[in-house]
Order: sequence, then structure tokens, then C-alpha cells
Amino acid sequence: MNAPIRIPTFADIQAAAGRIAGQAVVTPLLEYPALNARLGRRVLLKPEIFQRTGSFKFRGAYNRISIIPESERGKGVVAFSSGNHAQGVAAAAALFKIPATIVMPIDAPRSKIDGTKSYGAKVNFYDRRKEDREAIAAKLLAETGGTLVRPFDDPDIVAGQGTAGMEMVQQAKALGVMLDRVFVPCGGGGVTAGVALAFAALSPQTKVVPVEPTDYDGMGRSLRAGERTAAPGKAASIADSLQAPMPGVAPFGAAKALLSDALVVGDTELSRAVSLAFRMLKLVVEPGGAAGLAGALETAGQTSDSAIGILLSGGNADPETIMQCCAAVPLP
Amino acid sequence: MNAPIRIPTFADIQAAAGRIAGQAVVTPLLEYPALNARLGRRVLLKPEIFQRTGSFKFRGAYNRISIIPESERGKGVVAFSSGNHAQGVAAAAALFKIPATIVMPIDAPRSKIDGTKSYGAKVNFYDRRKEDREAIAAKLLAETGGTLVRPFDDPDIVAGQGTAGMEMVQQAKALGVMLDRVFVPCGGGGVTAGVALAFAALSPQTKVVPVEPTDYDGMGRSLRAGERTAAPGKAASIADSLQAPMPGVAPFGAAKALLSDALVVGDTELSRAVSLAFRMLKLVVEPGGAAGLAGALETAGQTSDSAIGILLSGGNADPETIMQCCAAVPLP
Repeated sequence: MNAPIRIPTFADIQAAAGRIAGQAVVTPLLEYPALNARLGRRVLLKPEIFQRTGSFKFRGAYNRISIIPESERGKGVVAFSSGNHAQGVAAAAALFKIPATIVMPIDAPRSKIDGTKSYGAKVNFYDRRKEDREAIAAKLLAETGGTLVRPFDDPDIVAGQGTAGMEMVQQAKALGVMLDRVFVPCGGGGVTAGVALAFAALSPQTKVVPVEPTDYDGMGRSLRAGERTAAPGKAASIADSLQAPMPGVAPFGAAKALLSDALVVGDTELSRAVSLAFRMLKLVVEPGGAAGLAGALETAGQTSDSAIGILLSGGNADPETIMQCCAAVPLP
Repeated sequence: MNAPIRIPTFADIQAAAGRIAGQAVVTPLLEYPALNARLGRRVLLKPEIFQRTGSFKFRGAYNRISIIPESERGKGVVAFSSGNHAQGVAAAAALFKIPATIVMPIDAPRSKIDGTKSYGAKVNFYDRRKEDREAIAAKLLAETGGTLVRPFDDPDIVAGQGTAGMEMVQQAKALGVMLDRVFVPCGGGGVTAGVALAFAALSPQTKVVPVEPTDYDGMGRSLRAGERTAAPGKAASIADSLQAPMPGVAPFGAAKALLSDALVVGDTELSRAVSLAFRMLKLVVEPGGAAGLAGALETAGQTSDSAIGILLSGGNADPETIMQCCAAVPLP
């Protein structure tokens, strides 16, 4: 665990794509005339909400577990997560028929806890304010001898998430579309770095824009500083899935040469995006998963892009949360 | 208006496909491992919720308006509808830059009224229990000399809706899948007849199953009787979009030789389908639009199909309605 963390490359994404083929859903690219009209450009949406477990996290989890040596797999896997990574690891472990224990905050959304249990994982709750989830995970690993599947700070997790970006480029090219910009929700930076690597290799003209919630804008701070820099990470946010104050070593190592800055959105912008997704797009997108859409909505007036991509990264919200967003922003 | 109504054929669907190309969205076919596992077969979903205006109704409306002679178009179009046909006609008329007046019940879902107005149509409200919408439409037509765009009893409306079925066959074939059965929400029978014509021509082994709400099961009654037969059509139903007590002459004329029976689902089954669509599929499907899914969920145990198709016909529900369905059926 103390070896330096390897920085992922595009070759890792290509390898991951081969491993997850036939297991991960190849989510489509969606286009809506109404959204194109609203933003004055073509908008291609990658709905990872349709991925196994309702978020892109399955890609990284399956890729990472697939490279655990056969001899080690029986000891199982351990992960800590507020919910989407939890479900990704639980579902991937179930496909490999190995035990999974997930350390989850007791205040995680009900649907994420239920989802994680539904894939057969054992859930170990902790108090987000009083306990250290990494310490709990370390104890579990000492007991079982299992493998830790990190949420983002692992080159094979980044590579797995990057397959979503690779598909996005391929699908946009099949439509004859060159994307000027791609908006990606950003927490610890796993999918951001993966998507950045994929576009740098396959569509280098495309600018990849991470979008972070207010007070959890560690990627933007790090990119501007040129080194990993923590955001305060204290404010309440409806984006439960993006509350990492600082990008991981592996994601930032890949992202720093490829990206220049990130956008920040608050709860109002996230609610507006969730409401628009529900009302106009007929999609259930959780607040964190709608950060890319929020970023695109807020900045469309500032650019003259002709085509953009948006990753809708997750849809695991309780109905009440979606309802609150729709009520807060009745007309998208 | 007194000429006998022409019965549509597959050739009408082929003609419609040419007219709507580039205007209607080619909605994808979606597949979810979780839904396949739940139903024990491959399930391919056709989400017409992503169609322009949030339902398949745009297809028929655009096709019908496109064949109004140029000299007549300026007088505009009139339609009566509880909401989805209203929006389809309003949006299609806007694309042709002609005026549209829609006769809508005052108790139509808010989102459907707002949607209809947002496309620039004039809305003429009426009281569903006291007034006759056809009489109101006739008066408007007498005043304007415009064209009535019927919700389902018109061969070119049926043909337009049938393009959804034609795409479904083509997309399933591209995946190498032969569908054993296709479940279609059924109100006045427009999309049911269109889908039946498309499958009869292109995939005759597939059984097309209309699914109707309790007390509005006119298609099933008519198919069993061999002639158009009205259902009571009095009960309250959450499927506001399927409350036609009897299939139209054009749809039934096409359907009677191709279909043998229909399924009936109640509010509980519709709520379960809406809840499952929200929670598992991350899709916003209105109660009527979920009738096909409800039919598939309720009858899966009775058949040994290896692959089925489901048309998700509309997604124009107010958030409160979706919420009520999810609350009524917490675990799909």
C-alpha cells in the first residue's frame, strides 16, 4: 500500500475496455431537439445513469476487480463509498462471485444503501462526522486479507471510468460530430481523468471541463496551483456523490497535463439541472450526476461551441430528492 | 368529414417514415441487465419519452400535418387532446409555421398544458364532464376553415405512430434479437395499430400485446367481439393518456386482423411500473406510458419468451404524480 501510485495512461483505458466488454452496458448518446434549441448548439448526452448500478462506477470497479489475482479473489474486496462506488463494487464482486464489504456513511441516500445490499454486499455503517472510513476499511482488510478497491485513487479505477469517455468519442464520431467541449461531474477526479485521457488520445481538439460543487472544488484549485490542493469541503451540498475535497494522486497525475481549470456550481444550479433532466429529458439524474449538465447550462452563453458532450454520471437519487429539486426550480 | 375512414396499411408507415425523417427523434433501444434478470429474458425498451414533446404523438401529428395541402395550411390546425397529442400537434404545427388551437380538458396535467403552450399553440379549455370536445373543435373549424388533426382515428396518424414500431423491429434486428412479444400502451389504438402493422410486415413471428387501463379496455373488448365495442370508461384512472373507451375505426380496422386480445392493468400495476422505471431504469414514464411495462411485469411468469420489446410511450407527468407512484410502491 505504500508503493507510489502509478499514473494511468490511455493504454490502461484500452485494456480496461477489453476487460469490461460484455459486462458493462454500452450506454447510448442521446440528443434532444429541445435541449439543442435551449443551448443553441448540438448537445450529446452520455447517460451513465443507465449503466449497471446506475452510475459509471461499475466500469472502474469491474476493471479493478478483474485484475485481482485468482489466488487473492476468495478473500474478497473492501470499499468505502457514500453510495455509487459502493454499488459498483458490490455488483462487480457479485459477477466474480466474491464477497464484498462496503463501508458506508449512515446518512447515505436510502436508495444507495438498499442498492448496495441488493447486490449481496455486506454494509458496514460509520458516522461521517466522528469516524474515519479509511481506518475502518484498514481494520476490515487486516481481518480478511482482502483487496481494497479505492473509489478513485487507483490507475485501474481511472482507466475503467475512462471507457465511458472512449465510448463517447467513438459514438460522437459515428454521428459525424466533433465535440468542442465535454462537461464531466468531478468528485475525486476518477472519471474526469479517465475522460480527459480518452479525449486527449482520440479527440484532442475537445476541451474537457470538470464541474465541481461549491466548497468541494479541489480539482479546480489543484489545476490552478499545479499541485494537489484541498478545498474546504465543509459546506452542505446536495451533490452527495461529489464530496471529495481533493483529487487523488492517480487522477490528478493524469489530469494536470491535460486540463486547465474546472467549473463550480452550487445547489441552485444543480437543482435546476436535475429539474430540467426530469422535465425536459425524462431522465432521473442525481444532483452530483447532473453537475456536468449544470455547468453546460450555466456557461452556454459564454461560448460559441457548435457541439458539446455532457456526462450524466449517476441517477441514484431517492424520489424525494428529485422532487425537492423540481419543486425548487419549477420551470427549467 | 363524412367519407368512410380509410384503413391504414404498412405502405402508409413506409411513407410516413420518409416524411418524418430528420424531424422525429430516432429513439434508441435500451437494455438493462437488472431488468433482464428480473424478467428472466432480454427486454428491449423503446423510450418514446425521448421523442420530441415527450411522447410518440409527434410522429403521427407531423405526418398528418405534412400532407395538408399547401393552400390549406395557412388556416391552421385544430386538435382535441388531454395532453400528449396536444403537444405533438403543437410542436409539429410550429415546425410548419402554421397556427394550432388545442381543445384541452381543464384538469389535464399541468406539465401537458404548459408544454402545449410552450410550442406556441392556443389552448381552449373545456370541462371533461360537462362539455363535448368534438363539438368545440367543430365550432373552431367552422370559424377558421382549418384542418382537424384527430388523436387516433386517421390512417395517417396511425401510420406516423407506426414508425416507432418499424424502428423497433429494425433496431432489434441490428442487435440480432427476434422479439417474441411486444407490449404497447393502448388508448384509442393509434400506436397499437401502427406497431401491429409494422411487426406484421417485418417481424410476423412477434406477438403484439396492447395494454389498457381498467375500465378503458375497449381494444380488448373489440378484439374479442370482432367489432368496435366500447368499455365503460367511467372509472378514475391514473393513466390520463389512455382514457379512450373505444378504439377508432382506422386503428381497429388495421388491428382486428393482426391482434387477438389485450391485457388490462389497474392503477396499482401502473404505479409499480412507474416506480420501477424511476428507480431501476432512471426513466420518467407517465402512468399511461408505463402500461406496456406494467403488462410485461405482470405476465412474465406466464410465458417462456426469450426476448420481449416494450414501448414506453410517454413521459409527460408532473413530478408529484411520479412521486405518488414511487411512494405507493417503494420497492419495485
